[in-house]
Amino acid sequence: MYRSHHCGELNAEHIGNIVTLSGWVQKIRNKGKMIWVDLRDRYGITQLIFEEGITPVDAFSMAKNTGREFVIQATGEVIEREAKNPNMATGDIEIKVSALKVLNEASLPPFTIEDQTDGGEEIRMKFRYLDLRRNPLKEKLVLRHKLAQEVRRYLDDQGFLEIETPYLIKSTPEGARDFIVPSRMNEGQFYALPQSPQTFKQLLMVSGYDRYFQIVKCFRDEDLRADRQPEFTQIDCEMAFVEQEDVLNNFEGMAKHLFHKIKNIVFDFEFPRMPYQEAMRLYGSDKPDIRFGMQFVELKAETDKKEFVVFNSAEYVGGICAEGCANYSRKELDELTKFVQRPQVGAKGLVYVKYNEDGSLKSSVDKFYNEADLKEWAEKMDAKPGDLLLILAGETNATRNALNVLRLEMGDRLGLRNPESFAPLWVVDFPLLEWDEDSRRFHAMHHPFTSPKKEDIHLLESEPGKVRANAYDMVINGVEIGGGSIRIHDSQLQKLMFKTLGFTDEQAQSQFGFLIDAFKYGAPPHGGIALGFDRLTAMFAGIDSIRDVIAFPKNNSGRDMMIDSPSAVDQTQLDELFLSSTVKK
Amino acid sequence: MYRSHHCGELNAEHIGNIVTLSGWVQKIRNKGKMIWVDLRDRYGITQLIFEEGITPVDAFSMAKNTGREFVIQATGEVIEREAKNPNMATGDIEIKVSALKVLNEASLPPFTIEDQTDGGEEIRMKFRYLDLRRNPLKEKLVLRHKLAQEVRRYLDDQGFLEIETPYLIKSTPEGARDFIVPSRMNEGQFYALPQSPQTFKQLLMVSGYDRYFQIVKCFRDEDLRADRQPEFTQIDCEMAFVEQEDVLNNFEGMAKHLFHKIKNIVFDFEFPRMPYQEAMRLYGSDKPDIRFGMQFVELKAETDKKEFVVFNSAEYVGGICAEGCANYSRKELDELTKFVQRPQVGAKGLVYVKYNEDGSLKSSVDKFYNEADLKEWAEKMDAKPGDLLLILAGETNATRNALNVLRLEMGDRLGLRNPESFAPLWVVDFPLLEWDEDSRRFHAMHHPFTSPKKEDIHLLESEPGKVRANAYDMVINGVEIGGGSIRIHDSQLQKLMFKTLGFTDEQAQSQFGFLIDAFKYGAPPHGGIALGFDRLTAMFAGIDSIRDVIAFPKNNSGRDMMIDSPSAVDQTQLDELFLSSTVKK
Repeated sequence: MYRSHHCGELNAEHIGNIVTLSGWVQKIRNKGKMIWVDLRDRYGITQLIFEEGITPVDAFSMAKNTGREFVIQATGEVIEREAKNPNMATGDIEIKVSALKVLNEASLPPFTIEDQTDGGEEIRMKFRYLDLRRNPLKEKLVLRHKLAQEVRRYLDDQGFLEIETPYLIKSTPEGARDFIVPSRMNEGQFYALPQSPQTFKQLLMVSGYDRYFQIVKCFRDEDLRADRQPEFTQIDCEMAFVEQEDVLNNFEGMAKHLFHKIKNIVFDFEFPRMPYQEAMRLYGSDKPDIRFGMQFVELKAETDKKEFVVFNSAEYVGGICAEGCANYSRKELDELTKFVQRPQVGAKGLVYVKYNEDGSLKSSVDKFYNEADLKEWAEKMDAKPGDLLLILAGETNATRNALNVLRLEMGDRLGLRNPESFAPLWVVDFPLLEWDEDSRRFHAMHHPFTSPKKEDIHLLESEPGKVRANAYDMVINGVEIGGGSIRIHDSQLQKLMFKTLGFTDEQAQSQFGFLIDAFKYGAPPHGGIALGFDRLTAMFAGIDSIRDVIAFPKNNSGRDMMIDSPSAVDQTQLDELFLSSTVKK
Repeated sequence: MYRSHHCGELNAEHIGNIVTLSGWVQKIRNKGKMIWVDLRDRYGITQLIFEEGITPVDAFSMAKNTGREFVIQATGEVIEREAKNPNMATGDIEIKVSALKVLNEASLPPFTIEDQTDGGEEIRMKFRYLDLRRNPLKEKLVLRHKLAQEVRRYLDDQGFLEIETPYLIKSTPEGARDFIVPSRMNEGQFYALPQSPQTFKQLLMVSGYDRYFQIVKCFRDEDLRADRQPEFTQIDCEMAFVEQEDVLNNFEGMAKHLFHKIKNIVFDFEFPRMPYQEAMRLYGSDKPDIRFGMQFVELKAETDKKEFVVFNSAEYVGGICAEGCANYSRKELDELTKFVQRPQVGAKGLVYVKYNEDGSLKSSVDKFYNEADLKEWAEKMDAKPGDLLLILAGETNATRNALNVLRLEMGDRLGLRNPESFAPLWVVDFPLLEWDEDSRRFHAMHHPFTSPKKEDIHLLESEPGKVRANAYDMVINGVEIGGGSIRIHDSQLQKLMFKTLGFTDEQAQSQFGFLIDAFKYGAPPHGGIALGFDRLTAMFAGIDSIRDVIAFPKNNSGRDMMIDSPSAVDQTQLDELFLSSTVKK
């Protein structure tokens, strides 16, 4: 038996007990005649005490010679501490060690195993197994575990079946971002790793498994943005005999369950539902952060009255009202202007109007607009004296997008985006299609099985861009947690959809053949949702990056620094797979 | 709303209610003026009734025109059935339909969707989504779901953390059966899919996560035996600061939990623990089926007394006693002889001794042994009048193996292997190493990190073949459900182990480098187990094949018949991966 207790559970009640603990040496304080060792395991830290002349000689000398991160086993009596530490669960006691054993020595770790470490990103990725010893990472993996269990508990209670779908599936001609896997047993042939189990979950609906879920890895071989991973985890769900409302209610219930169980936050209201068009109009984003207001106000009609060519030539003029910021300095305003002019935001300039505490108005476009004009804008924007109006102009989508970035920045500056406050939201009525300039045709915004709204079907041939879909996203604090749709189950409508997307029958058949075939044998109405589990966990952890909620993540080049993968393979291995490399040596 | 109730829940209590059901048409009986439709969903079957003149005309005519597997929605009153069906949960009632809607038509399925179908294996694999509609498959997937939830519930309660390990890992030179995955972003480099998360779970122990589990897919690109799959699911677990007993107790607890929750079977005893050597001696198998006795009895000493060259020249002579089989006919004995002479069993012949009811003994080797000799054997084998002794001879391992096959056959013939009776067992003390004739060296029986028994370490250099490992298998009803070991955490011992296995330092470093490195920073004592989840589910389902507990399995060539995968990929896709095919067109 290596231990009688964990390092996190002993307190005043155990005083007098003889206990055995095992763990890692977190810290040693050697005062000559007295040695204190902080012993750490997954559950906490317990202080060990060694005293010359009292502690057995061998244990004392062993204690002297242990180093950080040694694995040791200590037996002794739980005694009351003289100097109690109220910040530690075990701070009332310490262990008067009577026997010590070094279970394993340890080389000096390349960075300190502390909450605030001295190790840089790269070295911590390479020694991930050491980084994982630190509390901040451990807490996130424990959180992830709890979330996974609660997700399953909720869905199981709701009658969902967890069904595993295959990882070795089929590559499709359009699946340019599929990872492919050569088969040794099938010469010249390849599997593909799933980008999502979409097709299989729809097949399960055809099979009659009317409530399916899975917490499942998905794969995408694409250029990685800062916070993408080539493998990521999805809470994947599908339901049959449901309408959009049924799906939203069920997964709103799941989100509420998680907030309750994990954060002890009770949402006693329905999540707001915002049509996509409204989200774009008021927030310039399909994932608005509604922890704060600062909604967009359009000023085109008001600004057109005068001869300011920048506004007059703009498709869109709109602004936000930053409360209490009328006192912003020239420097601060210049900073904001530069902020929106960065290439990734792309605004040409920034117009401000200060609504001073004394009721006067001062703006960067005083030359073109008088105080009555500015007053009119301020009123339309519900501004009060002391507020600052920030106005952008230009092409509608681009300007809304820039204004969104500016709004979030102002939210940050004003402390309106507290990571411990949560504002969930459904964004609904997404467009069915989006126009692609490169290929000069419409693409499915979600996927080609997403059903259009009944009342918009008549527009499919005449004005495809206006058709709204039964598609929805769950958004929390400006983060897209998940999205889904009601699928098309009517084969005539599906044909029309493929036609609209410019698929020939042959193309549709080659890409989705077995799903189309399956639908011929009695497909129920169905729909579903997929939630990003990494993203969800990061949101619960109050952090932006998903990397810290993944035990063994890859870097921005898709590389696992710890195991040094991907890597070259032997030629014999390629030979067996009927492949040769075209890389020039 | 597509339905107010499921098709499995209505009974006499609902009589008089107006309900709406949705589902698939299982069966139609059209008697002209009356039509009955069996409506099926995941939860059961409910009978719908349509009556000419009473049912609205459109609903009646629609009912007439539906076919098998149409998806329909029916609304009507729950009424009492005239002819009740006590074999159906809903057998007391039927629905007097007042409105009917066809949600989707269905082509005639290629086989009947019945418990006993007319479809052959191949067509059912191709149309797996239809086969999955059948009860026998559905029940198995529901069972699998329940098992997964209970496994997690138990392990979560025991403080285990579910931690996801990566799927895109690294191929090792020895990993000849790895599936490899070319990386588009890393020219000429490859990931590999894990054959198991072994290394990662050991790293997690180094990281201090002292109780880890995962229900996880594993991959092996090997020639498939009848009941192997290229991707399979494992319940993967590891614990730190534990000895073998801790692991066994914990997972024996899990097995008991599952039997209790799923089958309502309570095991109020400790699972027996049988050393490997004893299992081989008594059952000729490292996974003995102990639902029945019929243990091997060795007869070498007894048989050597006479001049029967077959026995005298044999390394091993041993037999089993088949109770009450003394009356076996010549034909039956010939059958058994042929059975053991099949190439896959490989016995040269079979010697029998009939211990007749009248106390006389009759054998196929009467020429060499007299009745006293036979009596001596019978006594040693605890035989009673009426029993049949079946004896094989030859090289020890091969003969034990053949005798094992014969024993299981006799168990089947005598009805001693009831799939609803369960006999769990731990097989322990596996050999650490096994001799490989081809490479003329020892291989790790488990893997190179398995720890030898302390008391056997001194044999590692002198008699490696005799060293026993802290390795164990959970065996139920003759099926290996899982296995594991305590790992080596001492680097000196690990070095000795690598040396014994004939690894140079460089080879060890190249294959296991990051794990060896990790161990330098303080590895705790640890060990674990991996259980085959497909196999476990099949055992609970009382079936032999794992294919029926997997939603979308592959066939013996590793092919998914439904989606027709693996398949060829476009040259452009290979180009992006810096690969070309060497297959001759």
